[in-house]
Amino acid sequence: MPGRLGLLAFRGDLPALVVAANPDVHVVTFEGVAAEVAPTSGQPARFEKMGAVIKALKAAGVDRLVMAGALARPPLDAKRLDLTTMAFAPKLMAALKQGDDGLLRAVIGFFEGHGLRVVGVHDVVPDLTAAPGLLAGRAPDKAALADADRAAAILAALAPLDLGQGAVVAGGLCLGIETLQGTDAMLAGVTATEPAKRPKAPGVLVKLPKAGQDLRVDMPAIGPGTVEAAARAGLAGIVIAAGQVLLIDRPGIVAAAEAAGLFVLARAV
Amino acid sequence: MPGRLGLLAFRGDLPALVVAANPDVHVVTFEGVAAEVAPTSGQPARFEKMGAVIKALKAAGVDRLVMAGALARPPLDAKRLDLTTMAFAPKLMAALKQGDDGLLRAVIGFFEGHGLRVVGVHDVVPDLTAAPGLLAGRAPDKAALADADRAAAILAALAPLDLGQGAVVAGGLCLGIETLQGTDAMLAGVTATEPAKRPKAPGVLVKLPKAGQDLRVDMPAIGPGTVEAAARAGLAGIVIAAGQVLLIDRPGIVAAAEAAGLFVLARAV
Repeated sequence: MPGRLGLLAFRGDLPALVVAANPDVHVVTFEGVAAEVAPTSGQPARFEKMGAVIKALKAAGVDRLVMAGALARPPLDAKRLDLTTMAFAPKLMAALKQGDDGLLRAVIGFFEGHGLRVVGVHDVVPDLTAAPGLLAGRAPDKAALADADRAAAILAALAPLDLGQGAVVAGGLCLGIETLQGTDAMLAGVTATEPAKRPKAPGVLVKLPKAGQDLRVDMPAIGPGTVEAAARAGLAGIVIAAGQVLLIDRPGIVAAAEAAGLFVLARAV
Repeated sequence: MPGRLGLLAFRGDLPALVVAANPDVHVVTFEGVAAEVAPTSGQPARFEKMGAVIKALKAAGVDRLVMAGALARPPLDAKRLDLTTMAFAPKLMAALKQGDDGLLRAVIGFFEGHGLRVVGVHDVVPDLTAAPGLLAGRAPDKAALADADRAAAILAALAPLDLGQGAVVAGGLCLGIETLQGTDAMLAGVTATEPAKRPKAPGVLVKLPKAGQDLRVDMPAIGPGTVEAAARAGLAGIVIAAGQVLLIDRPGIVAAAEAAGLFVLARAV
């Protein structure tokens, strides 16, 4: 019999979805990270005290752990580190130099080294990703699909560099490549493009995981706000990787796309 | 004895630099493209009448041609095409589908097919590019050079896709990749980054030509405005490819960099 599910809850809507789908989940929140769910113990934990976190999870019968929500790199107070966290510090420091992927691999290794299996949020919440097919709007035409192919090729070229979960292409020309600031910032840049520079084709946003990205802790995501930002940017639609991109509020995504006349298509990758 | 130099003058400061360095140049401007130099004939030409342009250049004794300045893809009036331009149209249409590189290769082929050798603006104006070395500011530290290396690796990954003349990296994290909108738009995106998301390292802008980019018609460029935009974005400095990036107003670039405390470094590539 599997044990209980544990949740490390960070910012955003995802932790609440995990709790809704798994009422028995043991929730851990952290000081300094505003989570929208309450910690089971009544008290937020500290990143410096990962030994205490692991002990509490085990005491609660947790054997599977899911991390959900957005987490900016937290400031750590070196004076407050417990022994377990301190033992992890050298690996963490080395991993920090290898970009987000390296960091997350190290964090997964840390928990699994303490006997907690790390699962993805899409493993514990049904329907968080899309099966291949059209989710909203009218099927994209050949030109839009060609733009999606070029955006996917751009992301594939960047994947070995631990970079690129999103790109916008219009009429074969690249209008945006997602960097640290995220999808909404990229779409704001597309919206701000001088009209004279815009190709005639409206363009397509493509969201994919990076090749080799560990989907247990870091999945690309879209929500109704992504659809609205894409509409403001004048795009024809959004193409996502089936099974590999989180849909934050699927009915809201579909409603926003139908209202704005955008398509949302999940493609097998 | 070489013949006369011809200039197709588009927008911006470059055409005037060509004229200053080559007083005997035969200048052609185009209707609808505001050039800052006067056409030798007194009348702007039309893109639809390239047969007439070539005839006028040959009548003026021109055998080498330089194109200078910025040119958005001009709207063409199909009804006004002359025979020479019409004969070029199928190649032009095919080339337009292959991105800017394909288009420019086709344009060069067109002129060379009519006996006019195409040269680069850096071939006819001295000191338009930099020799390897520090142009302004204090030599960058190891961290800034590592950021420059990562930005260069990102651009190298994108080069096969006919994309990427500029990127910003700070503390190993990519804050911007130049797309259709140009360097200033990318730097505006960096400036707009939420402070909480910015790495501690200030970051570096790297400008390079794409691998295989034909420098005769399309060179990356920086000017004092680029330095000022980089300063607003909080960057430590700018790294350019020696010999392959145009310096539009070198004294102005150096002055702006010294005033803002930025370095400008040309690296051999």
